[in-house]
Amino acid sequence: MAGRPDKASAFVEWYLATVEAAGLTDKRYPVKGMNVWTPYGFRARRQLDAVMIREIEATGSVPVEFPALIPKTEFQKEGEHIKGFDAQVYWVTKGGASELDIPLVLRPTSETAMYPVFAVWIRSHRDLPLNVYQIVNTFRYETKTTRPFLRVREIHFFEEHTCQVDEARATARVASNLTAFTAMARAFALPFLPVRRPEWDKFPGAYYSVALDIPVGGARTLQIGSVHHYRENFSRPYQIAYEDPQGEQRYVHQTTFGLSERLIGAIVAVHGDAKGVLFPSEIAPYQVVVVPILGKDSGGLAAAHAAAVAGRLTARGVRVHLDASEDRPGAKYYRWETAGVPLRLEIGAREAAAGGATAVDRLGEKRSLGPDRLDEAVLEALAAFDRSLTDRADAAFRASFSLATSLEELADSTTVRQLAWCGEEACGHRIETAIDGALLGTPEGPPPIAGGAPGPCLVCGSSEGARWALAGRPM
Amino acid sequence: MAGRPDKASAFVEWYLATVEAAGLTDKRYPVKGMNVWTPYGFRARRQLDAVMIREIEATGSVPVEFPALIPKTEFQKEGEHIKGFDAQVYWVTKGGASELDIPLVLRPTSETAMYPVFAVWIRSHRDLPLNVYQIVNTFRYETKTTRPFLRVREIHFFEEHTCQVDEARATARVASNLTAFTAMARAFALPFLPVRRPEWDKFPGAYYSVALDIPVGGARTLQIGSVHHYRENFSRPYQIAYEDPQGEQRYVHQTTFGLSERLIGAIVAVHGDAKGVLFPSEIAPYQVVVVPILGKDSGGLAAAHAAAVAGRLTARGVRVHLDASEDRPGAKYYRWETAGVPLRLEIGAREAAAGGATAVDRLGEKRSLGPDRLDEAVLEALAAFDRSLTDRADAAFRASFSLATSLEELADSTTVRQLAWCGEEACGHRIETAIDGALLGTPEGPPPIAGGAPGPCLVCGSSEGARWALAGRPM
Repeated sequence: MAGRPDKASAFVEWYLATVEAAGLTDKRYPVKGMNVWTPYGFRARRQLDAVMIREIEATGSVPVEFPALIPKTEFQKEGEHIKGFDAQVYWVTKGGASELDIPLVLRPTSETAMYPVFAVWIRSHRDLPLNVYQIVNTFRYETKTTRPFLRVREIHFFEEHTCQVDEARATARVASNLTAFTAMARAFALPFLPVRRPEWDKFPGAYYSVALDIPVGGARTLQIGSVHHYRENFSRPYQIAYEDPQGEQRYVHQTTFGLSERLIGAIVAVHGDAKGVLFPSEIAPYQVVVVPILGKDSGGLAAAHAAAVAGRLTARGVRVHLDASEDRPGAKYYRWETAGVPLRLEIGAREAAAGGATAVDRLGEKRSLGPDRLDEAVLEALAAFDRSLTDRADAAFRASFSLATSLEELADSTTVRQLAWCGEEACGHRIETAIDGALLGTPEGPPPIAGGAPGPCLVCGSSEGARWALAGRPM
Repeated sequence: MAGRPDKASAFVEWYLATVEAAGLTDKRYPVKGMNVWTPYGFRARRQLDAVMIREIEATGSVPVEFPALIPKTEFQKEGEHIKGFDAQVYWVTKGGASELDIPLVLRPTSETAMYPVFAVWIRSHRDLPLNVYQIVNTFRYETKTTRPFLRVREIHFFEEHTCQVDEARATARVASNLTAFTAMARAFALPFLPVRRPEWDKFPGAYYSVALDIPVGGARTLQIGSVHHYRENFSRPYQIAYEDPQGEQRYVHQTTFGLSERLIGAIVAVHGDAKGVLFPSEIAPYQVVVVPILGKDSGGLAAAHAAAVAGRLTARGVRVHLDASEDRPGAKYYRWETAGVPLRLEIGAREAAAGGATAVDRLGEKRSLGPDRLDEAVLEALAAFDRSLTDRADAAFRASFSLATSLEELADSTTVRQLAWCGEEACGHRIETAIDGALLGTPEGPPPIAGGAPGPCLVCGSSEGARWALAGRPM
């Protein structure tokens, strides 16, 4: 359509053109990698946030907001963490005309903003668990090529931080986060795989990191979030300790759970097609667009009926856009298909006379709706659309993995590869070189391909410590 | 209570102690003036935001979000504006280890972030009006003493920016914003006065500024927001022009409408009393706290009934907190009165046996609720509480103004003063000196005291250009 690049053969170009055509963001802001959330893009983000808030609060997490600026002194307390972020933080060095005594970092993530305060909040075992989250923007001085939603310099970010009495409770919180994300992912219609990252690729300062990876065609994967177990790695330098029931001082065990605007990128990447974006109905800025067809024989009836239908659906809580512009119907269909609206209601003279509508969903399913139970029929059509979208995404997910049994075959990978690995870093790096990508890590849970027990390591042939691992090309 | 300072005689100390006791914010973050939004404070802010979003979107404004960082080059395009903010902006000068080519300002407000992009968005009269808003944090390098919600360095901020075809439409947008704020203020139970600021106190770059002032006792006022008319003051330097229907290029006329977390400060300041905060029910983090009274004769019935009532109210959309902690009922009453919860439901053995509850609102009104229509009775009690709170605030508002007829009497002002002023700056400054405060400006609409036509200027005695003005002591 309109000369847009082909998704299968030119994925990145297709992605950029599709985001642009849908009007989700504006890249013409005068700082590269800092984009403007347009009204349409902002509304998608608002729905995304609403799902995250609903699911995380259902697990007992409560909202907070910590400052965006972090003193250098606090930022540098945990050694690995600062090494991981030092090259990519923005520094605030001046206030007005004066140099600041202590430079401030614009948060790249909020461990070092929150933990000095957690140390004050937590005194006793009765203060635990502490489960708090915030949705804020974070900042990274990104030197690689930026791409809307996928790699930006100001990042819309969800981050949960928790403190637990011991390692086992922290491990349980990691599992609870994965369950919460499963519920979120259902709303996004995004199948995902939790993958425990290898040692050399974990979050700076973490004990271990479970990434939430989404295959997006070919061997490409998109990490849209992660859950980390910190053990006592931060609580010791930040002195977050509590008195246990026996009167002993103990350090808390911490976890974090992060998600970002990459989720919007993943929705575009996974569901999008040659026509444009497809939004699942929970995320769609508009769930239904009503298009009156103002033929000469309608006598105003189509416009009136369209407005009435739009008003009634809005009153029921459906996000509806009535496109009463002067453009031709075909132009409107094209525009809203590009933008990914799940359902279009066409209302011409015939539909107006019958009191019904012609419903066409974004996957092309067409229904003639009668006047009886029209609103319910619209809701049913939306639900059916979501089921179809989910089924399609699930089928694509299942087709995204294949087994690899030799190092040689990795180079030509057109899927993410499941393979046996001994766990040694040297073998891991050889796999990464062979696929020209990354050893993503080991599946946290069953592997995508039920291949029985793993054989010997693909690289060294050792059976000792052999496990299933995944290799791909992260975006 | 608990030795808190007296509101009437030690207002600022009372305010600080009351905010602290309610647990709305935590000042122990290691950057002065950058505070932590606690879960309780964050929930109040979330309700506040919801009211602002509802009312501004009802006027056709749409949400956007622009980046937090503004290149120095864009920031300096409008001369008055930069002069007004130069001394109080934070500068980002480094990314990683490198100096940035162009330093970035952390937005103190978003004119200079948005307007270069508006210049691209707007081409034709068909692109107008453009009415967009965002809710973001802004940053000011504040050198005065900081106070929670009233003067902070990271500010939770609502800002609408609009572009109109001409001056008259921009003037109409100012009026429409004042109407929208009237609806918001109803939800906050905050009576306010729109005041057109004198020339020397208008927003940097504005044609004129209408401040939203709230009297908070004595001669003190709190500006919680403002609406500005920019005429072409920004559209010329930023080249925001459109082609009118006759094919002529014209500059847009712009307006802005700003509100901030000061609204939370105003709610504390206006409604608060010796016991603590009072939240109107639309803003209250919890609208109802349910307190089971676990006497020995209850046999678990009170706890079970309290949980059932809390569950039912929650299902109806009421924000309920069930305080099942082990503290004594008196301690719970005290805690939730301090925190400003509108309504408390006490459920002991007697209430549980009857299937009812004893309702006590934050103004002390007590009701015995029977089992029939209990949920409706709770909603009615909340509505009655809101009416009482509004009536009390309205009465206090009316008592906040008095006429002044001589310069001498201003020094001892214990209210905001309404006075006649010729409009000359010299006379204005003499008034400011006399009251040891500010000439707030001229009422936008009827003056608070229906004093007929103003007499001659309080200072110079001139009747020429005489108008009603207000003088007070802004916080």
